[in-house]
This record gives sequence, C-alpha cells and structure tokens, in this order.
Amino acid sequence: SRSINLAVIPGDGIGREVVAEGLKVLSAVLPQDVKLETKDFDFGAQRYHATGETLTDADLDALKKHDAILLGAIGDPSVPSGVLERGFLLKLRFAFDHHVNLRPSKLLPGVDTPLKGEPAIDFVVVREGTEGPYTGNGGTIRKGTEHEVATEVSVNTAFGVERVVRDAFARAQARPRKKLTLVHKNNVLTFAGHLWTNIFNKVAAEFPDVTTDYIHVDAATIYLVTDPARFDVIVTDNLFGDIITDLAAAVSGGIGVAASGNINPSGEFPSMFEPVHGSAPDIAGQGKADPTATVLSVALLLRHLGYEAEAARIEEAVSTDLAERTGKPARSTAEIGDALAVRVAG
Amino acid sequence: SRSINLAVIPGDGIGREVVAEGLKVLSAVLPQDVKLETKDFDFGAQRYHATGETLTDADLDALKKHDAILLGAIGDPSVPSGVLERGFLLKLRFAFDHHVNLRPSKLLPGVDTPLKGEPAIDFVVVREGTEGPYTGNGGTIRKGTEHEVATEVSVNTAFGVERVVRDAFARAQARPRKKLTLVHKNNVLTFAGHLWTNIFNKVAAEFPDVTTDYIHVDAATIYLVTDPARFDVIVTDNLFGDIITDLAAAVSGGIGVAASGNINPSGEFPSMFEPVHGSAPDIAGQGKADPTATVLSVALLLRHLGYEAEAARIEEAVSTDLAERTGKPARSTAEIGDALAVRVAG
Ligand SMILES: CC(C)[C@H](C(=O)O)[C@@H](O)C(=O)O
Ligand SMILES: CC(C)[C@H](C(=O)O)[C@@H](O)C(=O)O
Repeated sequence: SRSINLAVIPGDGIGREVVAEGLKVLSAVLPQDVKLETKDFDFGAQRYHATGETLTDADLDALKKHDAILLGAIGDPSVPSGVLERGFLLKLRFAFDHHVNLRPSKLLPGVDTPLKGEPAIDFVVVREGTEGPYTGNGGTIRKGTEHEVATEVSVNTAFGVERVVRDAFARAQARPRKKLTLVHKNNVLTFAGHLWTNIFNKVAAEFPDVTTDYIHVDAATIYLVTDPARFDVIVTDNLFGDIITDLAAAVSGGIGVAASGNINPSGEFPSMFEPVHGSAPDIAGQGKADPTATVLSVALLLRHLGYEAEAARIEEAVSTDLAERTGKPARSTAEIGDALAVRVAG
Repeated sequence: SRSINLAVIPGDGIGREVVAEGLKVLSAVLPQDVKLETKDFDFGAQRYHATGETLTDADLDALKKHDAILLGAIGDPSVPSGVLERGFLLKLRFAFDHHVNLRPSKLLPGVDTPLKGEPAIDFVVVREGTEGPYTGNGGTIRKGTEHEVATEVSVNTAFGVERVVRDAFARAQARPRKKLTLVHKNNVLTFAGHLWTNIFNKVAAEFPDVTTDYIHVDAATIYLVTDPARFDVIVTDNLFGDIITDLAAAVSGGIGVAASGNINPSGEFPSMFEPVHGSAPDIAGQGKADPTATVLSVALLLRHLGYEAEAARIEEAVSTDLAERTGKPARSTAEIGDALAVRVAG
C-alpha cells in the first residue's frame, strides 16, 4: 500500500492557519489506500526566541526522513531581518539542494488582476535555488565606521546552472507552447551572464523543438505588465527569480494564490512546498488569510510525488472556487479550506 | 552672458533621431542671452567596429570640458552583449562618478498605463550609480568547461551609500509628501543590506520631517503594480534601481516617456542625461521613435544646470502634448519634436 510521510512546518503568523487548510485538502483528496503520516516541526520565531536555534543538524536529519515538506511561512518582526531567512529558510533550501524553485503563474477566470485587458497569463518560472547572490558569500570590513565596505558575491557554477537550465528545457518541452525564456542581465553581469547564456545555448541544441528567447531582467519586468502572455517557461537565477516571481504573482491574482515548490529533482533530499507569501503578522490569528496558495502548493507536492490526478483535482477545485468568488462575501481561512476539501473529495 | 557647453552623444539606432529632437527643443526653450554650444561625439557601434574603441582616456578628457552630456542610446545587435554597456555607458558613469541616477516616474493625464484605475503615480527613484553589482568585480575560472565558476561581486561602501542616501533624503524633503522608501533585500543580502539599512537610519535622524519606509525589492515590484501611489522618493542600489525603474516606466506611460539623469552632484565632472529606453534597432531610421523621453531628459539637464523655469516649461509642454494625443493619428519623431519646440518657445 502507498504512503506519504510528510514533514509539516506551520511556522509563524498566518503560516499555521494556511497549513491547517492545506492539510485538510490533502487528506480529502488522497485515495483511501494512501496512508498519510504527518509530523509537525516547530521552526520559526518562537523556537528561535526560546532556544536561539533556527535549524540544527539534528533537525535536518529528522526532516530528511520524510517524503516531502509542507511549509507555511517563517518570519516575525520580533526577529532581526535575515536571521530566520538565512538561518532557516535558505539554510534548508541549500542543505536539501533545492535547486529547482518552481513558481507557476496562471491568471484563472474570475480572478482579479491589476492589469487592464485580462491578459492570458500562464507561465512557469524555474528559479535557480542554490547559487547566485543567495549563497551568503561576501562580508563586511570596518563595520559601523565611515570606511565600511560590504560585499555580496554571486556564485554561479556550470554544474549548478546546467542542471536547472536542463530542468527548465524539459518542462518547456512538456508544455504545448514549448517556449523557454532566459532572464538575466548578461550585458552588465558579464561573468555570470556569459556562463548562463552559453549553457542555455548549449542545452538548447538538445531541445530543437523548444523555442528560445533571452530577455534582460529589467525588460522582463516591463513585459510582465505589458505582455505577460508572451511567457511560457522562464529560467533565471536565484535573485532575479525572487524579484520577478513576486511581480508575476501580483499580476496573476496576487500572492494569495501563488504557490511554489523547492524541488530536489534527484530525490536525494525531500522537496519543500510553500506559498510565495510571507507570515503576514498584521493579519495573523484572525482567520483572514487566504489558504489558496498553500492548497496549490499541496497540488505541486502531490505532482512531485507522482499523484498527478490528485494534483489536477486540487487545481480544478481551486479554479472553480476562485471563479465563484466574485460578488460573494469574504470567507474565513477555514471556510475556504472546507469548501476546497469538499470539492476535491466530491 | 550665460552659456551652455554641451557634449552630444547621439549613439546608435533611434538615439540619433531622438537626440535631434531633444536639441531642437533645447534651442527653442533657451532665452536669447544663453549661448548654446554643442559638440557631437561618435561613440557607439559604428566607431567600435571601425576602431575597436568604446571610450578612450582622450575621449574622457574631451567630454570633461563640457557642462553636461546629452546621450541618445548606445547599443546594436552587431556588437556582443556587454561590450558597449561595460565599455562605454558604465565606464562613463563610473569615470564621471555619476552616483545619483535620477529616474522620475509620473503618470501624466491622458497617458495610457497598463494598470487599472489610473493610479496617481508621481515618484522619483534615486538609484545609486557607481557601486553594487555594477562594479565589474568578479570573474570566471575554468571558462567553457563543466567546472566553470563565475562570480559577480556587489561592492558597497559607507562612503558611496551615504552620499546617495543623503541626496535622496534632501530630494524627499523638498517634495510636498516628504516620504522616502529604501528598497533593498536586507533579509538575504545581509552584508550589503545592513550597511544600507544602518546608513539609511542614521541619515534619517538628520531629516526628522521626512517619513521613512523600508521594502524588500521583490515586494516593491508588487506595490509598483498594486499601489504605486504609495511611493514618493525611493532610494536603492544600482541593480535594484535598474530593475524597478524599468517597471516604474512601464506603469507610468512606458519607456517612450521615461527620462533619466546620471548626476555628479559635486559638479566635478559633467552629468549625463539620457532616455531610459535603448537604441531600438528594430524601428531605427523610420521616424517612429517617440522623442519625449529625450526631451524630458533635456528638462532634467536644464534643472541640473540651474535653468528651473526652462525645465518646467518643457515639462508643461510635454504634459499638454501627451494629454492631446488621444484619438489623434501617430506623428513622426520630428513632428513631435517640432510640436514641443513650438510649445516651449510660445
Ligand atoms: C523570505 C525570503 C528569504 C525568500 C527569498 O528571497 O527567496 C522569499 O522572498 C521567497 O521568494 O521565497
Ligand atoms: C544598458 C544598461 C547597461 C543600463 C543599465 O543596466 O544601467 C540600462 O538598463 C539602464 O537602465 O540605463
């Protein structure tokens, strides 16, 4: 019989609320013969304040034993900026070699966009997850003085770039439009830019049926608001991916519906799925958070584990739910979760 | 008697066409007693192909003798990516210490925006121009092999950050809303992020009447499409500034109307004014380019040289011209320039 052994990290703020709904929908969608086991982990601001720990080696060992990880959100104003981001979230992405950071954007019918003309938005960003300016390389000298110098080093390797570019080509090939756009800034960041561009062109030769395209990151932000329909699959570095996926979420329904997967395609370590939004402390504990992004992250999780039919059922349920929202009174976090659970079970 | 000694760099593609109109409007707006002298420089793709040169020491010496520089656009597909950007444009910005890269965004009446609801967009981005990931620091080892490693080093100094932050505070203080937003990614780029944040907070104490705010660059792209009216003055690093000003241009009328100044506030070296758009080789030579961004860059140039009344006259003329465009047939580059020249003279 089949089983899913899931590590659950509710985290801070609205993280706990949305994860509860994600699990509700997950339980509802799974066939009877699939045994779901979950284990909660208490990472986040509270544990940090109590113990000073963000993510220990023992934590990593414990997490490693699971098939996948579902994360709500980590972060609280009581913790200095960077401590949980670098000490927990990025540490985990790097430790588990989550080099494919997958962020789909689809403007579903009935969903509001700030853009005129209801563009046909349906693309996926494949963001590199373990290199670039996110490595934590760099440092500070003469800190706090008028002679302080702070550096940030973006590290890019042929190994790291090629594997994510190859993954993106394969994803583009599997989609109807078969189009892949490289987003970088190779006219200024010429060292990293040449590496990305050369590898992109080399791998392109192996995928002759995929149409390719290159756009500078600054111009990409223009297209994301003037012609987002032009994109199918985008591959880009860690920082550019961070920036453009927030914009992509904003134009395709907002971060309330933006899902993501931090994927280790080899399966050597468990992949992690999380909404793109943060812990939103301002609305935490009020049942106001939209759990849709987490529910869609559960769909990505299921697809990653091979449950394609169940993933598609969740996506359909969300699509119907969103289409029926217009003009109705706002529902609580749990009400939305309940409605989606009913739909996917049905 | 007063005089302006202007270096003119038409450059490539539509650069030549738009600069001609910029100069037309400049001549028309200047009072009779101001003597305008211009000298053309032939930088760009053609000279690069003919001589291999992008910008020599002798060129810098010659440019130095001018009060300001007007640039059209540099860049052509026949030149490998990065050669003219690093070899000419960035070299000039760095050599002349253009540390305040000023990019105003204002959605003028009658101008089309991709955003719903015609938001009240009126902000200025002060982009640092001589540091960050633009320094060209970094390198490549094992180039072209499967073991290639390419690095890009973002260099940030207390000296460099403080002067641009101070400039931005002064600009915010001079505006009615007196609000300054720092855009960075201090939760991930913690070395540079702490430097920027600490200096921002330190300088803020000297400007108690300026309201301050901090937003991560990824979230800033969301606000730029969901609530751009929240911004008054933004200060940010070189790369983040590059990215968000293209987006800012897109939501406030497009790069056809986005002006910029590469300013050396001390006056030690001439400042350079240029439209945000590129050389657009696809429409070059057809009289299709909109010279408005260049004309608005001329207004920034005049303001920088102390001709406030003339700068304001150009901005008013552009505003009226844009408001009257709706429903009219498209005009050529020269026709728009002629119309603006008539208006500013009138
Ligand atoms: C919280 C932060 C470290 C993170 C990132 O920058 O990757 C977030 O913005 C994201 O996109 O998942
Ligand atoms: C052409 C390029 C080097 C330049 C930059 O990145 O600064 C451009 O995008 C700009 O914004 O002026």
